[in-house]
Amino acid sequence: MKDHCGIFGIWGHTEASHLVYLGLHALQHRGQEAAGIVAGQGGGLRAHRGMGLVADVFDAAALASLPGDRAIGHVRYSTAGPSALGNAQPLLFNFSRGPVAVAHNGTLVNAGEIQARLEAKGSIFQTTSDTEVIGHLIAQEREGSLADRIARALAHVQGAYSLLFLSGDRMIGVRDPFGFRPLVLGKLREGYVLASESCALDLIDAEYLYEVEPGEMVVAGPDGLVRRRFAESPRGGRCVFEHVYFARPDTRLFGQDVHEVRKRLGRELAREAPASADVVVPVPDSGVPAAIGYAETLGVPFDMGLVRSHYVGRTFIEPAQSIRHFGVKVKLSAVRDSLRGRRVAVVDDSLVRGTTSRKIVAMIRAAGAAEVHLRIAAPPTRFPCRFGIDTPTRQELIASSHSIDEIARFITADSLGYLSLSGLFRALGRERADYCDACFSGDYPVALPEEEPRRLHVLGG
Amino acid sequence: MKDHCGIFGIWGHTEASHLVYLGLHALQHRGQEAAGIVAGQGGGLRAHRGMGLVADVFDAAALASLPGDRAIGHVRYSTAGPSALGNAQPLLFNFSRGPVAVAHNGTLVNAGEIQARLEAKGSIFQTTSDTEVIGHLIAQEREGSLADRIARALAHVQGAYSLLFLSGDRMIGVRDPFGFRPLVLGKLREGYVLASESCALDLIDAEYLYEVEPGEMVVAGPDGLVRRRFAESPRGGRCVFEHVYFARPDTRLFGQDVHEVRKRLGRELAREAPASADVVVPVPDSGVPAAIGYAETLGVPFDMGLVRSHYVGRTFIEPAQSIRHFGVKVKLSAVRDSLRGRRVAVVDDSLVRGTTSRKIVAMIRAAGAAEVHLRIAAPPTRFPCRFGIDTPTRQELIASSHSIDEIARFITADSLGYLSLSGLFRALGRERADYCDACFSGDYPVALPEEEPRRLHVLGG
Amino acid sequence: MKDHCGIFGIWGHTEASHLVYLGLHALQHRGQEAAGIVAGQGGGLRAHRGMGLVADVFDAAALASLPGDRAIGHVRYSTAGPSALGNAQPLLFNFSRGPVAVAHNGTLVNAGEIQARLEAKGSIFQTTSDTEVIGHLIAQEREGSLADRIARALAHVQGAYSLLFLSGDRMIGVRDPFGFRPLVLGKLREGYVLASESCALDLIDAEYLYEVEPGEMVVAGPDGLVRRRFAESPRGGRCVFEHVYFARPDTRLFGQDVHEVRKRLGRELAREAPASADVVVPVPDSGVPAAIGYAETLGVPFDMGLVRSHYVGRTFIEPAQSIRHFGVKVKLSAVRDSLRGRRVAVVDDSLVRGTTSRKIVAMIRAAGAAEVHLRIAAPPTRFPCRFGIDTPTRQELIASSHSIDEIARFITADSLGYLSLSGLFRALGRERADYCDACFSGDYPVALPEEEPRRLHVLGG
Amino acid sequence: MKDHCGIFGIWGHTEASHLVYLGLHALQHRGQEAAGIVAGQGGGLRAHRGMGLVADVFDAAALASLPGDRAIGHVRYSTAGPSALGNAQPLLFNFSRGPVAVAHNGTLVNAGEIQARLEAKGSIFQTTSDTEVIGHLIAQEREGSLADRIARALAHVQGAYSLLFLSGDRMIGVRDPFGFRPLVLGKLREGYVLASESCALDLIDAEYLYEVEPGEMVVAGPDGLVRRRFAESPRGGRCVFEHVYFARPDTRLFGQDVHEVRKRLGRELAREAPASADVVVPVPDSGVPAAIGYAETLGVPFDMGLVRSHYVGRTFIEPAQSIRHFGVKVKLSAVRDSLRGRRVAVVDDSLVRGTTSRKIVAMIRAAGAAEVHLRIAAPPTRFPCRFGIDTPTRQELIASSHSIDEIARFITADSLGYLSLSGLFRALGRERADYCDACFSGDYPVALPEEEPRRLHVLGG
Repeated sequence: MKDHCGIFGIWGHTEASHLVYLGLHALQHRGQEAAGIVAGQGGGLRAHRGMGLVADVFDAAALASLPGDRAIGHVRYSTAGPSALGNAQPLLFNFSRGPVAVAHNGTLVNAGEIQARLEAKGSIFQTTSDTEVIGHLIAQEREGSLADRIARALAHVQGAYSLLFLSGDRMIGVRDPFGFRPLVLGKLREGYVLASESCALDLIDAEYLYEVEPGEMVVAGPDGLVRRRFAESPRGGRCVFEHVYFARPDTRLFGQDVHEVRKRLGRELAREAPASADVVVPVPDSGVPAAIGYAETLGVPFDMGLVRSHYVGRTFIEPAQSIRHFGVKVKLSAVRDSLRGRRVAVVDDSLVRGTTSRKIVAMIRAAGAAEVHLRIAAPPTRFPCRFGIDTPTRQELIASSHSIDEIARFITADSLGYLSLSGLFRALGRERADYCDACFSGDYPVALPEEEPRRLHVLGG
Repeated sequence: MKDHCGIFGIWGHTEASHLVYLGLHALQHRGQEAAGIVAGQGGGLRAHRGMGLVADVFDAAALASLPGDRAIGHVRYSTAGPSALGNAQPLLFNFSRGPVAVAHNGTLVNAGEIQARLEAKGSIFQTTSDTEVIGHLIAQEREGSLADRIARALAHVQGAYSLLFLSGDRMIGVRDPFGFRPLVLGKLREGYVLASESCALDLIDAEYLYEVEPGEMVVAGPDGLVRRRFAESPRGGRCVFEHVYFARPDTRLFGQDVHEVRKRLGRELAREAPASADVVVPVPDSGVPAAIGYAETLGVPFDMGLVRSHYVGRTFIEPAQSIRHFGVKVKLSAVRDSLRGRRVAVVDDSLVRGTTSRKIVAMIRAAGAAEVHLRIAAPPTRFPCRFGIDTPTRQELIASSHSIDEIARFITADSLGYLSLSGLFRALGRERADYCDACFSGDYPVALPEEEPRRLHVLGG
Repeated sequence: MKDHCGIFGIWGHTEASHLVYLGLHALQHRGQEAAGIVAGQGGGLRAHRGMGLVADVFDAAALASLPGDRAIGHVRYSTAGPSALGNAQPLLFNFSRGPVAVAHNGTLVNAGEIQARLEAKGSIFQTTSDTEVIGHLIAQEREGSLADRIARALAHVQGAYSLLFLSGDRMIGVRDPFGFRPLVLGKLREGYVLASESCALDLIDAEYLYEVEPGEMVVAGPDGLVRRRFAESPRGGRCVFEHVYFARPDTRLFGQDVHEVRKRLGRELAREAPASADVVVPVPDSGVPAAIGYAETLGVPFDMGLVRSHYVGRTFIEPAQSIRHFGVKVKLSAVRDSLRGRRVAVVDDSLVRGTTSRKIVAMIRAAGAAEVHLRIAAPPTRFPCRFGIDTPTRQELIASSHSIDEIARFITADSLGYLSLSGLFRALGRERADYCDACFSGDYPVALPEEEPRRLHVLGG
Repeated sequence: MKDHCGIFGIWGHTEASHLVYLGLHALQHRGQEAAGIVAGQGGGLRAHRGMGLVADVFDAAALASLPGDRAIGHVRYSTAGPSALGNAQPLLFNFSRGPVAVAHNGTLVNAGEIQARLEAKGSIFQTTSDTEVIGHLIAQEREGSLADRIARALAHVQGAYSLLFLSGDRMIGVRDPFGFRPLVLGKLREGYVLASESCALDLIDAEYLYEVEPGEMVVAGPDGLVRRRFAESPRGGRCVFEHVYFARPDTRLFGQDVHEVRKRLGRELAREAPASADVVVPVPDSGVPAAIGYAETLGVPFDMGLVRSHYVGRTFIEPAQSIRHFGVKVKLSAVRDSLRGRRVAVVDDSLVRGTTSRKIVAMIRAAGAAEVHLRIAAPPTRFPCRFGIDTPTRQELIASSHSIDEIARFITADSLGYLSLSGLFRALGRERADYCDACFSGDYPVALPEEEPRRLHVLGG
């Protein structure tokens, strides 16, 4: 499961694009396939976007081409390979009152319907991104400030959106009424910073102020910062999977420290699904905090029995005649001494298709483990996300059609244990009503329309 | 002076994108900085675009990613460096009835005015290309076939346009009512081919059928080819500079063979501005045919006294402390034996700023020439083009503010002679009313509005 | 401190070069700046080498160009940037009896002296690598098999060398008489594998057979494997720093599991330099096992209070006007919740210049730690390595000229503790006489000649 | 047929490497697949080499990395694709007295024999270039200056060599006793320049001094320039094909201007093989001067009936299902108007395999020519070159096994005429004894040993 996007913006700092570059680097885990920055100087905007990691897309010359004291940026994971450049964000739109750049984290559920309606009225679409829908809706609004027009435009869309806008004289941050995706505000000297996660503020030594609230808009401009509520929040929809897996451990998310929450998930898991083990081993790196909590609570030694390679590139050439599949082995390897002859409890953050877990179990057993007990610090993943995370189809989610016993057999573990949904919220210390847990429960906070597929065909690089 | 674009399309051939690739290669002289192809299969369209020469932008994998029996392509010269990729054509628009790709050669003179009007009504623009204006205008038309809608949309625009459109079920070629830019139709087995110049038909062994007429539209579809007139032609506006310089010598342009016309220009130049010379030397390669005609008419030997390098790349690093400027010398060099002690008549196709001619005269003199007489097989270039050619500003056109004697002194030639405008049309054997000769005469066939600059800011790669 | 090289070879497998590619990937931590493979088929050898990570240097086409059932490969860290390609290994030499490829891990101490002698006799050198010296010495030997000639040639050299040779009909592995660098032998079906570390055997599912002994040579050929002793071992010189830092935790090194040894170093450190702490935090990833051992022994909770980024590229553009230095912050970040208000014991594997430790201490303090106690699971690094590891000069090694108290003040830690040399060997459970600990003690097992610098000037790419 | 190499060196100019870059650019026609420069400052040498055109291999940073007031460079055509980088020149050797760089144009005929002898004595070879043989021979010489040692070393080699050497304090140019390949000396302010062709002197405004004589060595050093004869010249071996095809038309070669000689070849061809034609058309660009001479002598109009594309890259993707072969058509195209209905005499400089000529004849006929008469301004090419030019094997040279009538039929020309060998020398105005015309006559000036193939296997990039 992969997050779609991370966003970062800064208003009022002479090295704006450079700080966005740093901020995007801190958010790299939210999207590794494309990156872009739009910077503003005077009334003009300049863009640089490309495929690849932030460090690949931007060099000194690219940053030098983005002068100005305000900038927004975006990292994304993209579904279609060669065609993706046209969808790299921020998108740039020219409205009658001038250019506006938009960076979006999330997914709209009624984009296709709106696009069809707009096209019928004479609009043209040039990307396959649902973010373009937002641009068109804003263009339809003629009255008031950009903030007013954005607010009215967003009344038409449903789904998940944390958005950054940059115009000639404003930077605007918006979070949808459910608050699916995170968005935090910080301060750096006289300037303001908006970021998907607080870890990006830390990197540039910005001060954390607060989380933008669901249904809230913050507007940075020449006269400082203004907060306004643009929509009522019927209920919360914070993505619980951000806690479980996506967010960086050093991020403060939805009011809680991610690493600490994950340790609590491990502790709760220990209570709900203890294992008779000699050692507790995490699947690195995301399983580490839960494993620490799990081990502590059970009083069983913690050890790094699996090692993660630092040098895994995106493409890896498999030997032609190989029947081994190196996919997991080049990423992870087993530390024999920690595993040999032991009853091993392996702690991971989630289990999606089961194929990776199966390989990990086999690897641990091959290293000489006496028993392998897999523990997942989250409930079974049964439903696809519709709000900004790239999940397999329901058919591919093993827990949607198999019992825990069946899964345990498939992955060849001696036992398998999950955290319960109630245990998850107990560990979190929060109400379910504030969160979206649709991937576990199937309870989607927003009604999903019978969506027709977006129709614009692939745009190549 | 550089042409902005070349276009090429094919309908009804199983290797459509590959043939477009070949056709664009033949049109490479019309634009060297970006290239793109959109291919259609079933109702879908796929695009590949990039910066550079056709051979750089497309490799076997790129062509393989463009299956289908129809495709259109585009080469362009672009004014802005790193920002140009967003403007690479063909552009792709999603209308309510599906995607349409557009490739454009020419320049609209009222694009800014239309954009302002459309933006005021809620349209958004995402490129700095005036071609996007055409896309929006088509989207505003709701009734009838794509051809109908294009015809009505084009009623709003003024200026130069040879256009190719590709939709799910049609390829459409259009030439503006003045016929500024060329567009020819050919046939390849069962398929139809549209190209800026006939030389591109020759490369793929397509049969030349006819030139698309000013104000004419040709529509290739499942039922064959239909010609229709979509606008009246008040007068002709064929670009006479295509004859003088742009078109490839092996092209049949506006009903005449380019190489032959250029030889006739040289012959007429010999009558109007003979030189007492021992040898006639062209500035290669574009000056060669006029020099042949000039030499023949005067009965003076023709010789290749200047040699052009085949290996000139786009960037060339000048020595830091150099006071020499190698710009011309790395492109051209003098053949001493042909020039030493001789009275040399040098024939070139045009003289724009005078700086290159000055270096050429100096080079020939340094090779030992006794006298250097420069002859230009066209009238003085005094006015910028507004219809699709990248010209310097009026201030930079030396002939706009200097007499022929002054220019001769500047370039240090012993004498300088131009062809007269009447001589140009005499050699051409055509009426001035059929042509645009504004770069020589200042008579622009279309009134130029007080144009406000296009407002969308630079879109980076 | 960076290791210079990793080597990997295979004899007798139809996908030899592909398996070397995998093996080099597992050894990537031993050298990230260049990689190369030479493969043999029939009597011929083919090479592919390049700058960068294994995954960058080799694509499917490169591997396809290296057919054959035997191959050796090399990864290296290189000191000189643009000039390094000429030094990428394996080197290929043509001797009178045919071509031989050589891959080398280690450093010779008398290479300059031998080169001067050989040059005086008419030899020419074409690289700056001391490996070329070995090639020349072999060429001087005329009698006997390749193995005989190698054995006699190596009698002339002093220093550290684990070597792989590939000729038309043999693969030979050699380890110097002191055994400075590791080299292990494995078996894959009918074939033999030689690798710097056992983790590379694991990746390709090869069976670990034994460590090549100091002064031993193993020869794989058509008739199987032959072991021979080519030199006496006066004493051991196994690099103790391989245990401390270089080797991968999942490697079996010098007869012990690396991860387990590091945990024991942490336990011994807890006994020698306990800290009154609320939490034990490793500097990831290399400090993790020692921190686990340290925490266990002290009974203090272990936590991942520092997070390491997965996306650190080699170049990172610093903001121009920045006074912050992001070098460490983009690699590591602090987890506030684990540190705030706590007395933190930070465990690292080594402390070289002190500048990184200083930044880490500052980062932990900025996250709210009440106290910061740095513990190093090794003795102070006081002397440069001369046997294959890239160390700073003595001047740059802070412990060579500062007391522990001074260092503690420099890095602003509340306390600083090291492991003693005797504690190191106690944890290791081995005799000092078997090891080289010169970086800690200054006791170099081989006398260092007054070395004149190698004289060949930079060879560009 | 392709030349192997071009060389250029400069001694005593502060922008030495930059001027070598320019000089290599002027020599680009002599080799397009690799380029390199070695520059000297103080006693040190620095190199930059790469695959591709000069403008591709060198950017501003590369030139900046080559400081110093002396430099030599090399362009080469190389036979083996991916393996070629190891062979890119100048080669750098470290001798006992310091580093020396070597750039070589030519081919040794006894390199294999010498290599075998040197290897037997303990030398090792690291490239497949016969230039390395020269390096080894110099290293064998212990006495005297570098010039002395080079002179003695060259006594052992046979074949073609124009060589440049650069050491810490000398630049040395050498031409073999037969003078197969050209080498000229020029002067630029206080500095000296050596170049394969005089056109490279012209580009940098260096003054032409004289041709280095066969068997001569010129030594530039701190005290100026010294000429010395290092070998007797039994007879001349100047490559007559340099006049016919290789050298640039603006070069002064072997005492004559190339363009002028080619016009005289055309005039002599007109006398020996006149054609009843309405127009004389060259195969551009190399056939142009001979065609001018041919047309003048016959009194038949000259015209550019074939046009050469400026945009031909090295790779060109053929349509998969195509039975047309675009190889020639993308390079050359026919100008219909100049050819239609005419009897066309086509003049080319040489005819090697016949396949290209066959396509040209077909192209001209397809353009409507009434008759096509091919005239070659040289004798039939019947024998491969052994002295530095890449020729097809004898089997592939159509004239080695077919009569002129048979060739005419193969290429489908109405007639075919060659220049005779005596006519060639008549036009040249020189004695055969001063030249090598082995490609026409089979008379090789140097006895060819039964050469065993060079044995070092492919060295990859």
